Amino acid sequence: MDAHPQTPISLAALETPCLVLDAAIVEANVGRMRARMERLGVTLRQHVKTAKSIDVARLAMPSPRGPITVSTLKEADYFAGHGVTDILYAVGIAPGKLDHVAALMARGVDMGIVLDNVAAAEMVAEKGRALGVRLAVLVEIDCDGHRAGVRPGDPMLLEIARALREGGMEVRGVMTHAGESYNCRSTSEIFAMAEQERRAVVDAANMLRADGHEAAVVSVGSTPTATFAGDLDGVTEVRAGVFVFHDLVMAGLGVCRIKDIAASVLATVIGHQPEKGWIVTDAGWMALSRDRGTAKQPVDQGYGLVCDVSGSPLEDLVVVDANQEHGIVAHRAGGKVDLSRFPVGTMLRILPNHACATCAQHGSYRVVRDGGMTVEANWERLSGW
Amino acid sequence: MDAHPQTPISLAALETPCLVLDAAIVEANVGRMRARMERLGVTLRQHVKTAKSIDVARLAMPSPRGPITVSTLKEADYFAGHGVTDILYAVGIAPGKLDHVAALMARGVDMGIVLDNVAAAEMVAEKGRALGVRLAVLVEIDCDGHRAGVRPGDPMLLEIARALREGGMEVRGVMTHAGESYNCRSTSEIFAMAEQERRAVVDAANMLRADGHEAAVVSVGSTPTATFAGDLDGVTEVRAGVFVFHDLVMAGLGVCRIKDIAASVLATVIGHQPEKGWIVTDAGWMALSRDRGTAKQPVDQGYGLVCDVSGSPLEDLVVVDANQEHGIVAHRAGGKVDLSRFPVGTMLRILPNHACATCAQHGSYRVVRDGGMTVEANWERLSGW
Repeated sequence: MDAHPQTPISLAALETPCLVLDAAIVEANVGRMRARMERLGVTLRQHVKTAKSIDVARLAMPSPRGPITVSTLKEADYFAGHGVTDILYAVGIAPGKLDHVAALMARGVDMGIVLDNVAAAEMVAEKGRALGVRLAVLVEIDCDGHRAGVRPGDPMLLEIARALREGGMEVRGVMTHAGESYNCRSTSEIFAMAEQERRAVVDAANMLRADGHEAAVVSVGSTPTATFAGDLDGVTEVRAGVFVFHDLVMAGLGVCRIKDIAASVLATVIGHQPEKGWIVTDAGWMALSRDRGTAKQPVDQGYGLVCDVSGSPLEDLVVVDANQEHGIVAHRAGGKVDLSRFPVGTMLRILPNHACATCAQHGSYRVVRDGGMTVEANWERLSGW
Repeated sequence: MDAHPQTPISLAALETPCLVLDAAIVEANVGRMRARMERLGVTLRQHVKTAKSIDVARLAMPSPRGPITVSTLKEADYFAGHGVTDILYAVGIAPGKLDHVAALMARGVDMGIVLDNVAAAEMVAEKGRALGVRLAVLVEIDCDGHRAGVRPGDPMLLEIARALREGGMEVRGVMTHAGESYNCRSTSEIFAMAEQERRAVVDAANMLRADGHEAAVVSVGSTPTATFAGDLDGVTEVRAGVFVFHDLVMAGLGVCRIKDIAASVLATVIGHQPEKGWIVTDAGWMALSRDRGTAKQPVDQGYGLVCDVSGSPLEDLVVVDANQEHGIVAHRAGGKVDLSRFPVGTMLRILPNHACATCAQHGSYRVVRDGGMTVEANWERLSGW
């Protein structure tokens, strides 16, 4: 399929399952986040790990050169190939990846890398000197106990920075990710988490500066905290990814509305189990992903919320179970479903729990607009490492 | 990377995460299953949905022409392109896929398709006549209430078969999948489930034959039931997929041993959280999949069981949590871990809960043998639809 087919194709003509993207929703999501970041006076360094698509990234980048955040060096290669030159690789660096980072720098990319321990800093300094490159490092701060990072106030931060400086590397600044914001139960909790995230990195940057490091970059990021942060004083940039598409987890958190969810999986009804009230479709966990992120939220959306082919939710129909290429659609609470409304061949669209996970199961986006049936483009997406 | 690199590469030189396959383990798994099927007097129609690789499939096919089972028509295209001509597409057919099926038949593939309802049978008959092809249909039987299929004894089976016959289509036989075998708690339960699976399709085939249909094919299949079936009288073929690689779910069921698991994800340590006893790696849920199939088993393996780089399990270390590109490794029961044994840069291998799900996150297999470090080949695998 061409990126921009000459003859318009209808969703009804597509083989299922496939991934559908409503471009109008993406544009609205991006517009809101860009406006919010402008009001807060920070740079939006979108995390491209959600869409992994240059077409989507271009909607949110302030310039064709970036900036962006990547989750893999393959993403960095791909976006560099499309002219992006300002890239932060936001996963703690492994020594075996530094040749790859240096190769990206040799292509003209301003690469930032991340680490959170002295051993990694020493390896980076040693390898950077051996390669003859000055690697630019953000030290990861653990603002919420969620995964990686130096704890706020831990003097190890200075040991790391000194190891880098003494090794001739650039201490570019600090970064953190409030992953625990996904577990908040209210928007006021997210608001507080955003302040906790901000304070953790601003304090860390000040600690570095007091020790003579420039630490020009102070980076925070998660879609929930980016959406509810009250102020971002001292922060220079925000990394957020899922906001471009949103998903059911974000809706469950109050971060978006259901109608802000841009990506969905197109499926076809292949049968029924009338005694159980089941509709069987051809979109199983391979198409939807195994992500069950709403299972711990007040409203469990199963493997996804079911919509009609135009993307309008069908109240209380969810994918209650999934095999590899089979989805079981039923009433959320075991209620009766009029199966005659969904004969074999009916197309449905399934909203994802987690856009990053569901989209990763697909190689491209079939792009529609405003609930329409016409596929106006096919946007490729990257996968793998 | 070439399929057979001239210069041997070591696992230690690979960028992580990536998927590693021990070919010796695959060969042993395949050998056991082939011998078992020969003893039981049935054809092994391996399900290629697990490996999605011609290199793996060739180890288990009795002939370069097949037979195989596929979960997507893209798999059928790919394997047909490699000379396989006997293919069963084992997901209930959607009317929008029949042009594709006919195109495969026009390439010389003997395609079997599956359905479980009268509406689909009528659509298949109508479309087959319009396309001028005699589509070969297996009627799906629901042996265990797991997902799709006609219930045993339901006279709808005859309505379906008559609609096909009157429409000029071939009633090739019946098939079922004992998906509930994954929820068994003992091998004796699996043994009983295999008999339930056998009886459901043999009875259905006899019901069809009494009504004048040939129903030559009587097809069962799941790796657990294939492994423990006592006899398969009346069955003509077995579809099984995961046996080629096995996984932690199969090990938890007693279907294989841990050392029979052929595929693993190579990861690198990127940091630690000493207060928590955490080792942070670069293999998150994107590399491991979100599958948590062992969560309901007696031994919960988290997102995977951790091995050293040669594939030997490190007792009680599992991936306890995962972000997109971060894995959190810790002691299964919160016990103390000597983190100094796992410095930054250490490579680990993670055994998957569910091979079908984990392998699907990767584009190729780095092939090793007998726990060795030398990558002897790179086998591509298919994804998407």
